[in-house]
Amino acid sequence: MKLYETKTAPNPRRVRMFLAEKSLLDKVECIEVDLQKGENLTPEFVAKNPMKKVPVLELDDGTTIAETMAICRYFEVNYPDTPRLLGESALEQALIEQWLRWLDYYYFVPCGMGFQHTSGFFKDRMTPVPEWGASCIEDTKKFMQFLDQHLAGKEYICCDKLTAADLTAFAVTAFARVIKLRVDDSLPNLLAWYERIQARPSAQV
Amino acid sequence: MKLYETKTAPNPRRVRMFLAEKSLLDKVECIEVDLQKGENLTPEFVAKNPMKKVPVLELDDGTTIAETMAICRYFEVNYPDTPRLLGESALEQALIEQWLRWLDYYYFVPCGMGFQHTSGFFKDRMTPVPEWGASCIEDTKKFMQFLDQHLAGKEYICCDKLTAADLTAFAVTAFARVIKLRVDDSLPNLLAWYERIQARPSAQV
Repeated sequence: MKLYETKTAPNPRRVRMFLAEKSLLDKVECIEVDLQKGENLTPEFVAKNPMKKVPVLELDDGTTIAETMAICRYFEVNYPDTPRLLGESALEQALIEQWLRWLDYYYFVPCGMGFQHTSGFFKDRMTPVPEWGASCIEDTKKFMQFLDQHLAGKEYICCDKLTAADLTAFAVTAFARVIKLRVDDSLPNLLAWYERIQARPSAQV
Repeated sequence: MKLYETKTAPNPRRVRMFLAEKSLLDKVECIEVDLQKGENLTPEFVAKNPMKKVPVLELDDGTTIAETMAICRYFEVNYPDTPRLLGESALEQALIEQWLRWLDYYYFVPCGMGFQHTSGFFKDRMTPVPEWGASCIEDTKKFMQFLDQHLAGKEYICCDKLTAADLTAFAVTAFARVIKLRVDDSLPNLLAWYERIQARPSAQV
């Protein structure tokens, strides 16, 4: 299988960490896509993912799966004897899904939009709205505070164990440096959790 | 179980349709939450969902599950003998997840933001950025065109059968009237698909 990804981007990192925690990284051949050069805008890439985003998983028969959580779910279901990162019972699966959605909508999306609308990084292919970007950065800060409060007395985000929610929250928190947000002593629970996840081998891949 | 929802909002509709397709609607007691009156902003509601959104499922032991797809997944896993709307094989589950994410990020979010940032509907609790709202409405239109092309020769959005992706796409397409977008003859494949889904009993609940 081929995994089209961009080493420095947060979504591909979520997939690599997910595979590393399951010891499945050797199942995929990673192929680097240079986003700033627009390698994701070529007809060949758009045929793999019409949304023009990484990561994309290409199966050996040529079938493509786009979207981080879709790729993760493919491996979760196909390798049931590896650590379950999307939950076991119906309630666990639901609570992890709830957190993944919260992290996506209220943390990752504002962080990414804050970056795109204030940095001009992709201004060749979108029209930044700086006022909107500034509002998104404030929302990202607020979610960091919410996460800090939530993590008081907790080792992981939900279900008392490592789940895909921790991997997503970690990748976004690391990525937030692009909008000049870094976790520090003012958010002690988030900082302690961040350092715990960062110490895992999967954070190095 | 109690389902906190708002009859006219698109996310609760996705849950109701999902339950109706599985003949599980009688498992929940629906409790109406008036969003414009701010009933979702009370301390009691925020304790159920800190993101202040509907729908929320409350189990008999008081555990709450927020987020549409998390609630749907709870029923999908707990009632495996009902029609599977999130897929059977790993590939089906992944492709449905891919489509759900595409529909959420590139259709539902722009449609919702287009509404919120141009209508002033929630201006008591957010600062609309009209320029951003107008850009979102354009993105929603473009995704409708993409969906129309995708549906050429297809009865359903993916996996050659009815899935949660169809229910999501239907609820968003119906909701798009709030930004004055309606499916018509200019999008013939989308229109034919829309009318097929609209004819299902689940679209009436």
